[in-house]
Amino acid sequence: MSEKISPYSRTVYFYETDKMGVVHHANYIRIMEEARMDFMKKIAVPYPSIEQMGIVVPVTKVDCSYLQPLYFDERILVYVNLKMFNGVRAVYSYEIYAEPDRLCARAESSHCFIKEETNMPVHMKRAFPDMYEQVIKLVKE
Amino acid sequence: MSEKISPYSRTVYFYETDKMGVVHHANYIRIMEEARMDFMKKIAVPYPSIEQMGIVVPVTKVDCSYLQPLYFDERILVYVNLKMFNGVRAVYSYEIYAEPDRLCARAESSHCFIKEETNMPVHMKRAFPDMYEQVIKLVKE
Amino acid sequence: MSEKISPYSRTVYFYETDKMGVVHHANYIRIMEEARMDFMKKIAVPYPSIEQMGIVVPVTKVDCSYLQPLYFDERILVYVNLKMFNGVRAVYSYEIYAEPDRLCARAESSHCFIKEETNMPVHMKRAFPDMYEQVIKLVKE
Amino acid sequence: MSEKISPYSRTVYFYETDKMGVVHHANYIRIMEEARMDFMKKIAVPYPSIEQMGIVVPVTKVDCSYLQPLYFDERILVYVNLKMFNGVRAVYSYEIYAEPDRLCARAESSHCFIKEETNMPVHMKRAFPDMYEQVIKLVKE
Repeated sequence: MSEKISPYSRTVYFYETDKMGVVHHANYIRIMEEARMDFMKKIAVPYPSIEQMGIVVPVTKVDCSYLQPLYFDERILVYVNLKMFNGVRAVYSYEIYAEPDRLCARAESSHCFIKEETNMPVHMKRAFPDMYEQVIKLVKE
Repeated sequence: MSEKISPYSRTVYFYETDKMGVVHHANYIRIMEEARMDFMKKIAVPYPSIEQMGIVVPVTKVDCSYLQPLYFDERILVYVNLKMFNGVRAVYSYEIYAEPDRLCARAESSHCFIKEETNMPVHMKRAFPDMYEQVIKLVKE
Repeated sequence: MSEKISPYSRTVYFYETDKMGVVHHANYIRIMEEARMDFMKKIAVPYPSIEQMGIVVPVTKVDCSYLQPLYFDERILVYVNLKMFNGVRAVYSYEIYAEPDRLCARAESSHCFIKEETNMPVHMKRAFPDMYEQVIKLVKE
Repeated sequence: MSEKISPYSRTVYFYETDKMGVVHHANYIRIMEEARMDFMKKIAVPYPSIEQMGIVVPVTKVDCSYLQPLYFDERILVYVNLKMFNGVRAVYSYEIYAEPDRLCARAESSHCFIKEETNMPVHMKRAFPDMYEQVIKLVKE
């Protein structure tokens, strides 16, 4: 699926570097979030519209393998893939490149769906069948 | 007044540095917030108890003059002073030192008081006279 | 001059918000840096090329007035102006808007020029006359 | 071993929260770094002294499972354990609690040792046998 979705791209900011002269490892987790939000827009399920439905999608797990450093002012490309979605959980995978093709990190994030009002898990298939079908279709492709 | 309140102190974190090898200038604004929250506890007006009253205290202005760099693992001392308080606005001043006595920054932050529910300014003297008197007394000392 | 330089623009990231539901005030200082770096590229004096000359340009002062909150996923526009430049110091001013025209903050940052090797101030007019003339011309326009 | 080393502890800062009202997940990675630096001091191998030997210890992998949210002003306790060390790689594990005993996250970070000058891996056993023995002893205990 990810082949059809264009990667997220932006420049490395100065304040993202640390005294080693490279992007601090914690900032990759933030870049993943940016790329995920961008991906959700591109598949027509923008996060703000999920919020408006009273749903929040917290991160339950994150992992990142750092392969190469990222430097200030480099262009980042993040290829995002929705690896798993079953209406209760979602797993995204990420490949973070320095443009054009230096692979810098491989990562994954897991998420659940929570009804904000009750703070209880929500089953997207039952609660929001249209959105569920829309996303399931993408995962199957 | 500040002479009676002990300074806020902690170590500089690695992730606060940037590629110049020193604490990034934006992080001073965060350190000011930490020191302000610590100060509010020390004068017995902790921010969480203000939040519980339905009040938020946003920053309306901030300025910071950077005199000397701060380095990783240095001990920071922040002397906070409540420079002005009239129940509608509050102004804090800060002196940020590297232990024991290298002055690294002088800063100020201005704040207003907002009722969270209505998003309207609140006059602390009228709405919370006890807390108002408690703080006014400190400023006068 | 700023009228000729297009504003810096990007979307507010989720991780830039705080528990008040708006962009945390310290992040404006970071957004200013992003906008300044973008501006320097647009006037053909990119910061990485200054670094390659062995010069660093630390922030000596920053101030920011917060007028309106910025919300997650809003489009930011930052209009940057090089207010003052004399080869020893530079002052930038910033207007931060939520698209299209809600003014959220007014800010300024002051900078000096330091030779990295010696950690001493450098006079750009003497050390790098071509770059100096290039920038001076822009300020005068 | 971790039982003998006191946990790292500090208060959650306001700026660490996001619009969900809890500590943003990327900040756990930073808290892990703080706790790891604190741990290294406690086992008498402070990171600054490693830096002075010309060695840097980048993160090669990080993972974090989020079990419970952390809230503003809560007291964090981080129990760190040096799970593996062989002179070429080191793996730390972390348990992040909200005081006194609410387990909020379980995490791990992997690291290698790089000679800063050459940017090449360094074998601590050969290059710094005393430090190697000092750390190996701790892992075995």
